Amino acid sequence: MGVGTVDTVMQTTQNDIFLRACRRQAVPRTPLWFMRQAGRYLPEYRAVRSQHDFLTMVRTPELAARVTVQPVEILGVDAAILFSDIMVVPEAMGMILHMVEGKGPVLPEPIRTRAHVEALPHPDPESALGYVMGAIRQTRGALDGRVPLIGFSGAPWTLAAYMVEGHGSKTFRRAKAMVYGEAALAHALLGRVADAVGDYLLAQAAAGAQALQIFDTWGGLLPAPEFAEFSLAYIARVVSRLREANVPVIVFCKDCAHSLEAIADTGCDVIGIDWGTDLAEARRRVGARCALQGNLDPAVLFAPPEVAARHSVDVLERFGRGEGHIFNLGHGILPETPVASVRAMIAAVADESPRYHD
Amino acid sequence: MGVGTVDTVMQTTQNDIFLRACRRQAVPRTPLWFMRQAGRYLPEYRAVRSQHDFLTMVRTPELAARVTVQPVEILGVDAAILFSDIMVVPEAMGMILHMVEGKGPVLPEPIRTRAHVEALPHPDPESALGYVMGAIRQTRGALDGRVPLIGFSGAPWTLAAYMVEGHGSKTFRRAKAMVYGEAALAHALLGRVADAVGDYLLAQAAAGAQALQIFDTWGGLLPAPEFAEFSLAYIARVVSRLREANVPVIVFCKDCAHSLEAIADTGCDVIGIDWGTDLAEARRRVGARCALQGNLDPAVLFAPPEVAARHSVDVLERFGRGEGHIFNLGHGILPETPVASVRAMIAAVADESPRYHD
Repeated sequence: MGVGTVDTVMQTTQNDIFLRACRRQAVPRTPLWFMRQAGRYLPEYRAVRSQHDFLTMVRTPELAARVTVQPVEILGVDAAILFSDIMVVPEAMGMILHMVEGKGPVLPEPIRTRAHVEALPHPDPESALGYVMGAIRQTRGALDGRVPLIGFSGAPWTLAAYMVEGHGSKTFRRAKAMVYGEAALAHALLGRVADAVGDYLLAQAAAGAQALQIFDTWGGLLPAPEFAEFSLAYIARVVSRLREANVPVIVFCKDCAHSLEAIADTGCDVIGIDWGTDLAEARRRVGARCALQGNLDPAVLFAPPEVAARHSVDVLERFGRGEGHIFNLGHGILPETPVASVRAMIAAVADESPRYHD
Repeated sequence: MGVGTVDTVMQTTQNDIFLRACRRQAVPRTPLWFMRQAGRYLPEYRAVRSQHDFLTMVRTPELAARVTVQPVEILGVDAAILFSDIMVVPEAMGMILHMVEGKGPVLPEPIRTRAHVEALPHPDPESALGYVMGAIRQTRGALDGRVPLIGFSGAPWTLAAYMVEGHGSKTFRRAKAMVYGEAALAHALLGRVADAVGDYLLAQAAAGAQALQIFDTWGGLLPAPEFAEFSLAYIARVVSRLREANVPVIVFCKDCAHSLEAIADTGCDVIGIDWGTDLAEARRRVGARCALQGNLDPAVLFAPPEVAARHSVDVLERFGRGEGHIFNLGHGILPETPVASVRAMIAAVADESPRYHD
């Protein structure tokens, strides 16, 4: 695996249909990648993971690059997405982070006070998150222009929710109590997180990420008015800063179908559509303002391969003819997903999507 | 506490504003009850719970009646809802049920085969679920006509999801794989569960339940087309059978705002609206076809009491003037909720709601 240099950033991407679809340009078939594609459903990923713990993989550019490239080489997806974790930003902001098997991220010293918010350092991405930039450079070298590389971050609200709650939760009641009961404190925290996220994503683009996705996994925990005020306003601030990077920006807010038009208003290039939202209706509502990415239900991949193939074509059909569709799952692939169904999905989209394009 | 008899069923209900609002009749103020109101947030409930395990309370009419009446006497809500659990129906259908602290229901022998589906007995409610009917009769006696008593069941899909998965899950991937990959088997199971639910709810009404709520906690796990086919079709079958009971029927499908019109099509009297859905928009879409119940975010109750009061008035304002609103939370109250905020919510609705009625 080569070490990336400025030269690799300048290289021509051989398969650029993902980047073209992000900009609603003409493509001969619908590009496909999927969330968590560098993950545990792949035996080749599990082989690496069995030798290293999760955070070691995240923090070691060579390992992160190796699993990032796996789905490109094994499955033939049209974009790579960096293997990393959204929780690296809270950690770079000084919070202690543990990954607990079966439980996810745990922050043993969650934020509950203004003093804690004001003490959060503003992380310099190249020093505090240099391992991510290293992973991007190494991945670009390893990809050698075959497909584009997507960088990402958690959305400010999603990160702040973990930082206040201290761990994953069905309800995030502490984080939401701050929104409802201590709005000024929530805004102070979100402003700092948004500044960190903006710098982090700009640094990813400078290191070689060719598109950037903002994941608002927990946007759906807020009713629409609070989503607008405490989540989308900060996503919009980040998207606005990313204009200077001149790479496509994808915004994926889970369970936020109520706000598709407002998400388009952020100026993002692509809106990620979750599996609970009808893609045809999303297209009607968003129109020509953004490309749409999605939205096969990840649970479909537990059905037999022919069912996965049929539902994948249904997704193409729901979007319909024309440009601006990137095929994806409607949420991350689940760890136990059988690879045979993943291959059936990919083959169906490759075979059937050309008739949706001129 | 008296033992209920047929006489208690015939008695006049002193505070019937809940029942009148279910039928969109005029009321002087907006009635209020809330999901899981007989629950762990109340110290008086925890006192009973500390002496008995959860399923013992469910199965002992005297205990179930005692905690059912608590929120009426302590907080002054406008309806009681029977303390019970949706998992009693799968258990009555022959499945082994454990309640695991911090994990919820566990069914150690989940359904995976047609043979298992076909071997499920059809439970006779008065024998297999006689303890529920006993609890209803005792509660009616204890309430002595002060407020109406609501009975309930899980929706067929929600129950089937647990029966196939074997436990709660963020994704219910096995249950969904059956929907996607073995639709005929899923329909066979859902048909049997719907028949059991219909008989169960009719028996509750015969025992004295004065309204019936169907909880589809996991309806939102299905995209709209699958929700229509595998959940709502069976809810509609149950609602249709309940017409003969001549009591209001409430349908609450969590995270199913995409299908409000279709839920109204079931012929239910009331639609439960979750906190993620805008109540004003729900009213516009449903119109005069059904009353609406909801929808304060339960997380609001973790903010200070004055915030809980303000957001409660916001809910009244979102529904607006006129009849057909039952105030409720948009999902069950959370166990650690401070009672002071609950009282602030109740006081705000009592004080402010008269101006929304003629």
